[in-house]
Amino acid sequence: MNTRLDHIVHWLKEKSIDAAFFTSPSTVYYLTGFHCHPHERLLGLGVVPDKEPFLVCPGLERSRAEGTGWKHTILDYTDAEDPWIKVNRAYQERLDRPATRLAVEKEQLSLARAEALQSLFPDAAFVNGESIVNERRAVKDDTEIAIMERAAALADFGVETGVSVLEEGISEMEVVAHLEAELKKKGIREMAFSTMVLFGEKTGEPHGEPGNRKLTRGDLVLFDLGVVLEGYCSDITRTVAFRSINDELQHIYQTVLHAQIAALQPCRPGTPICKVDAAARDVITEAGFGEYFTHRLGHGLGLDVHEFPSLHGQNRNILKEGMVFTVEPGIYIPGKGGVRIEDDVVITADGCKILTQYPKEFKVVE
Amino acid sequence: MNTRLDHIVHWLKEKSIDAAFFTSPSTVYYLTGFHCHPHERLLGLGVVPDKEPFLVCPGLERSRAEGTGWKHTILDYTDAEDPWIKVNRAYQERLDRPATRLAVEKEQLSLARAEALQSLFPDAAFVNGESIVNERRAVKDDTEIAIMERAAALADFGVETGVSVLEEGISEMEVVAHLEAELKKKGIREMAFSTMVLFGEKTGEPHGEPGNRKLTRGDLVLFDLGVVLEGYCSDITRTVAFRSINDELQHIYQTVLHAQIAALQPCRPGTPICKVDAAARDVITEAGFGEYFTHRLGHGLGLDVHEFPSLHGQNRNILKEGMVFTVEPGIYIPGKGGVRIEDDVVITADGCKILTQYPKEFKVVE
Repeated sequence: MNTRLDHIVHWLKEKSIDAAFFTSPSTVYYLTGFHCHPHERLLGLGVVPDKEPFLVCPGLERSRAEGTGWKHTILDYTDAEDPWIKVNRAYQERLDRPATRLAVEKEQLSLARAEALQSLFPDAAFVNGESIVNERRAVKDDTEIAIMERAAALADFGVETGVSVLEEGISEMEVVAHLEAELKKKGIREMAFSTMVLFGEKTGEPHGEPGNRKLTRGDLVLFDLGVVLEGYCSDITRTVAFRSINDELQHIYQTVLHAQIAALQPCRPGTPICKVDAAARDVITEAGFGEYFTHRLGHGLGLDVHEFPSLHGQNRNILKEGMVFTVEPGIYIPGKGGVRIEDDVVITADGCKILTQYPKEFKVVE
Repeated sequence: MNTRLDHIVHWLKEKSIDAAFFTSPSTVYYLTGFHCHPHERLLGLGVVPDKEPFLVCPGLERSRAEGTGWKHTILDYTDAEDPWIKVNRAYQERLDRPATRLAVEKEQLSLARAEALQSLFPDAAFVNGESIVNERRAVKDDTEIAIMERAAALADFGVETGVSVLEEGISEMEVVAHLEAELKKKGIREMAFSTMVLFGEKTGEPHGEPGNRKLTRGDLVLFDLGVVLEGYCSDITRTVAFRSINDELQHIYQTVLHAQIAALQPCRPGTPICKVDAAARDVITEAGFGEYFTHRLGHGLGLDVHEFPSLHGQNRNILKEGMVFTVEPGIYIPGKGGVRIEDDVVITADGCKILTQYPKEFKVVE
């Protein structure tokens, strides 16, 4: 059994939990090495301490699962079969007595599946398996960090490519098309999320959508994009000006940049997360833009693009070495424009390392 | 209140259900007109018969929600707030007595959210709200079908673009990059799923992943792709040969084509879904390839790329006018190659109409 699974088994024993069933594709990948997004079909990993773990996956995916090096049981099923019958049998074979405590990922498991599991274990209480999964997944090892550095470099390349095609009259979606195509030619199958390229007043919407807006002199251009590389996500935001910029937007840019740099200062093992959010928020509030910084500072990053921990002002969790997250303050003035600057950051033994490297200094693209 | 919500309210009353809480982004869009994928943040629509419905969404998304024409209550929250406090207050204001029956989308609602709702309504039983949502969403109206026709035409264009760039030595991902870029230039922000372009022996994996495999004479080339247009998905598969083809693969192609055409014959109101699956499966089984047709015939298509109904051999549900789904038989010979042919089909008053139009006749690309 691999080390990651060992930690789960140790936790199950410590907490007197009879069994676990993990169903989020990213956790299944983390624990088995098998990467699969089966849409509505069931994918799961069953764990019973000291027994053979089992993977359940659609029959279509069996050969891929076998190819990943998973050495334990694989249960597959066809589209006309009920996979829960096989899951039930697998648990019955492994459990000495009916389970009374079953760990699941409550944020991810659907109520329908929880009910199916409950019918297999009528007396079982569901225990929050996300606590151990989040704790383990949040701290990346050197191999994971090395992949995430490469994923971040590809995000840098995406911004660089986008900036290189900016010209009067090009549309937001044309820029998206171009930069994604260059990433796909490098073998990137999947972006981490829907690529955002926004021009002018549209940068004032923190969750705006790219469209047919044409670029013109004086526009801000905001890029927010990331790739999935070997399962791991990157996520970068940069904002540049096209040919000219007015003083107000330039002042906003410098304020966001100061806030972003301020937030990196306390990033070291032992810092409470709320202090990192506060470091950026204080700069923005003091500059009079507090009401326009409408979201949290950032989010954990890894196999999911948004994962534990959430970097917001009420979070008293403590940063640990190996945690990777985004630091992305922003100021958005509706109708005028907005600026966000986002890096991917890993906590090191005595500070932090910034994975995304595209320059942050204010830039006017000619 | 709009007609779609009227149907939900009618159903709630008929079933004596006190309230509903819908949380799947596609259902919220269907019922409110607001399209939002808020990652891990809560998005929901609360419905209490004869009371004002309410939308709960992240504060970041409020202005977009207001812009969609939703005329009713919007509750927003920041990243540091607990949205359930606002949801609770909204229900308390609307309910005359504590709810005992609450409809939710069980396939979609996470156990964590179900527990949060349960704590608001300790005595409530959860009722499967997917039954009415699936029933309503499965039958598309003329406006929806018109959008899906355009989405299908864009999928055709994607295949056409991919075929046009095939040349000796090009990689699978280079073809993906090119065809997606051309779609994005037309304003498509989102593909319906990760685009699949597979060459040669890789077509023998029904869920293979495109990579660096280079195209060479005699390869089959399989395209499986779709776009999201105004929220609606398309999904097409075509398989062509590059420069030459051996007799065995050509025979497989003709078998799949006969099966696909055979499956379209019974597509009319009143046909049980299992008969449609059987029509294709019988052709493939009679040709001796039954064991290599390893998946269901197809799936419902609409706001989700896989939605109700599932077209498999055990499904006794009846086709109705306005249903849209895929018909996609395939034969996959591991290590050799595979063929899948997939159309998007809408049930009409007396038969069906095929939305995807790219030719299906066997084609050798020079």
